[in-house]
Amino acid sequence: MARYVLKFGGTSVANVTRLHHVANLVKEQAEAGHELVVVVSAMAGITNELVGYAQSLCPDKLTPEHDVVLSSGEQVTSGLLALALTRLGLISRSYLAWQVPIVTDDNPSQARILKIETEQLERCLKQGIIPVVAGFQGINDQLRLTTLGRGGSDTTAVALAAALKADRCDIYTDVDGVYTADPRLVANARKLGQITYAEMFEMAAQGAKVLQARSVELALKHRVKLRVLSSFFKASGTDIVEERKFVESTQISGIAHNPHEVLITLKGVPHQIDLMAQIFNRLAQHRISVDMLVQTHAVNGKVDLNFTLPQADLERAQPLLEQLQKELIFSNLDIDQDVVKISVVGIGMRSNLEIGRNLFNTLASHQISVRLLTTSEIKMSVLITKQQTALALNVLHEVFNLEGGDKECALSA
Amino acid sequence: MARYVLKFGGTSVANVTRLHHVANLVKEQAEAGHELVVVVSAMAGITNELVGYAQSLCPDKLTPEHDVVLSSGEQVTSGLLALALTRLGLISRSYLAWQVPIVTDDNPSQARILKIETEQLERCLKQGIIPVVAGFQGINDQLRLTTLGRGGSDTTAVALAAALKADRCDIYTDVDGVYTADPRLVANARKLGQITYAEMFEMAAQGAKVLQARSVELALKHRVKLRVLSSFFKASGTDIVEERKFVESTQISGIAHNPHEVLITLKGVPHQIDLMAQIFNRLAQHRISVDMLVQTHAVNGKVDLNFTLPQADLERAQPLLEQLQKELIFSNLDIDQDVVKISVVGIGMRSNLEIGRNLFNTLASHQISVRLLTTSEIKMSVLITKQQTALALNVLHEVFNLEGGDKECALSA
Repeated sequence: MARYVLKFGGTSVANVTRLHHVANLVKEQAEAGHELVVVVSAMAGITNELVGYAQSLCPDKLTPEHDVVLSSGEQVTSGLLALALTRLGLISRSYLAWQVPIVTDDNPSQARILKIETEQLERCLKQGIIPVVAGFQGINDQLRLTTLGRGGSDTTAVALAAALKADRCDIYTDVDGVYTADPRLVANARKLGQITYAEMFEMAAQGAKVLQARSVELALKHRVKLRVLSSFFKASGTDIVEERKFVESTQISGIAHNPHEVLITLKGVPHQIDLMAQIFNRLAQHRISVDMLVQTHAVNGKVDLNFTLPQADLERAQPLLEQLQKELIFSNLDIDQDVVKISVVGIGMRSNLEIGRNLFNTLASHQISVRLLTTSEIKMSVLITKQQTALALNVLHEVFNLEGGDKECALSA
Repeated sequence: MARYVLKFGGTSVANVTRLHHVANLVKEQAEAGHELVVVVSAMAGITNELVGYAQSLCPDKLTPEHDVVLSSGEQVTSGLLALALTRLGLISRSYLAWQVPIVTDDNPSQARILKIETEQLERCLKQGIIPVVAGFQGINDQLRLTTLGRGGSDTTAVALAAALKADRCDIYTDVDGVYTADPRLVANARKLGQITYAEMFEMAAQGAKVLQARSVELALKHRVKLRVLSSFFKASGTDIVEERKFVESTQISGIAHNPHEVLITLKGVPHQIDLMAQIFNRLAQHRISVDMLVQTHAVNGKVDLNFTLPQADLERAQPLLEQLQKELIFSNLDIDQDVVKISVVGIGMRSNLEIGRNLFNTLASHQISVRLLTTSEIKMSVLITKQQTALALNVLHEVFNLEGGDKECALSA
């Protein structure tokens, strides 16, 4: 008998038929004798609808009331799935964040989990009750509702798995695992049987949408075993592991792309030693995170600064940047939305100069010009124009030998 | 400075535009210097949608999970209205039932309020914060969500007004007050400036939809001053008072009609002394309430039983009645859905034999046949066929002199 946390995302519970199907998946696991805690997202589309209401009443900032409105979606799903499980003869009940409770800090819309009381859930498990926990939500120390940010139900699931010392956390979604690249853009994309936490973290952070980066970080931190699999059809999923059991011939595990970034260029900024820090801090105060920050060498005491930030934050960032332009007195502020970030992810990448060379040569030979480059221990990201997304993914997928299905069999869990 | 509870129903908060309008109504009251507690229903249509989901997963009974699903609608509205108020420069925050808390018994779907802690809300009022309380919901002593039954937000509002010793509870709805009959069916229907609790209770119980009967009962019990008025246009509403200040020429205050009843006939039931009790108890065990129960005199040891019950309960009642047919061994079980209950409401009615005579003569002279009759201190109800609804309402409205607007001016608050 094992203890599993099963998490079902928005498309998995999009309507009553899907909910019923999910209930049957849970039943199978229950009948196999496992202890189960289920975590659910809002039904697909509901959160967007609720965001729409809240934004049309208060478009310019996020308040704690946004969290009250948004968290209701998960409440509905938890109640409905508990109903569906009960109909199948199981004993189940819904749990809202305040009932567990799941305690967070009081950062509205982006709260972080501080503590999960497991006593109630442990009692459920002992009594053979399957708790269905509403994901994405928490309460702060003032007993007010908070939410964990988009995709926060993954975080709820991983945090519960850690707190309950679950044997594994299964993330059910609408794809059957983690691919070497987006299968809609790369015909030869291959499902990975295993991927390391670190690689998965980069893949998620760089735009692979199967898992939220924060939940991978949390899983890594607490050594929670993760599996990504489909609630739509039966197939082996992808296991996120500490070390890959079989080292593949190439260190590259996949290529992610993120079209939701904008490139900001500040031109002719008088050089100051803390220039980057100033810009970074100003944006961070408004919870806008900057990525791919690059500063040119000073010419005549002036530098150019390039950085990317999430498209969703652009509206809030623009007045801040215009204010900075007045304060720092620089000539141009350019905003380019026609960019995509392509990231090649794999362990030990930085030490392998061959990969960078391969990357640049391949892109150049296909007339793909690179606007920005950043590297880390396990990823290398380039910024290119949007219309070259599919071309770049495919040529890189080929040059790094990611296609082919044979290796996958050996790697499947 | 007065303290008011303002309650806004589903059509008053049906969309973002209406919510914004409601926020302005609240602002007007706040600027007049009043202390305000706001109670909201779910946006019109939402509750039905949620009921639809829950019923398709679990059609045959109501469980605590139905309450979890349904109560989310009011959560959304409370968050949105608090947002809208904040946008208008007021200080506001949402309150869910568990945050107040509003404690109920653990009767799922039909919980009754046991206790309201006012400490949090009093603190809000002292600090100039306008709390927006989610109506319809409560928590039981196990800290699980409960709901108060359809229209339960009225009950929340009245209960809060009682607990907070409010000067008045204003129920904003899509009509501008209580009418002598449904204005859509009776052209001469007249808005009442005042109506007594007892009359309002009967009007509500007999189908006038402006207020839930239970909330009127609660208002009567705790002497909460009620006002019914429109959130759609400015007009004097109807005050629900202990005694009407001006006695009108007729004792009849209005005529209600309820088309959502079915007539059950059990034919040839062997007479037993506790027959009515048996039937009543069996249905009550399943929380089906029987109305207009009439038993014929025994002929050859057998009786006929006629009673009405809510159409919504028919599906659950039918198997119980069929079971009773087997146990009690009677010949026929008839179910007639083509009925409407017409109720004439007014103080001191039973003592005035003229009214009953007038009622029967008027209906008879218009070929309206009466299937059942029941009377109480302040109402007289008849069951007739549905297609004669408008005819019956109009001829009774005329014969009891309910039309005309002059008297209304004198009665307006």
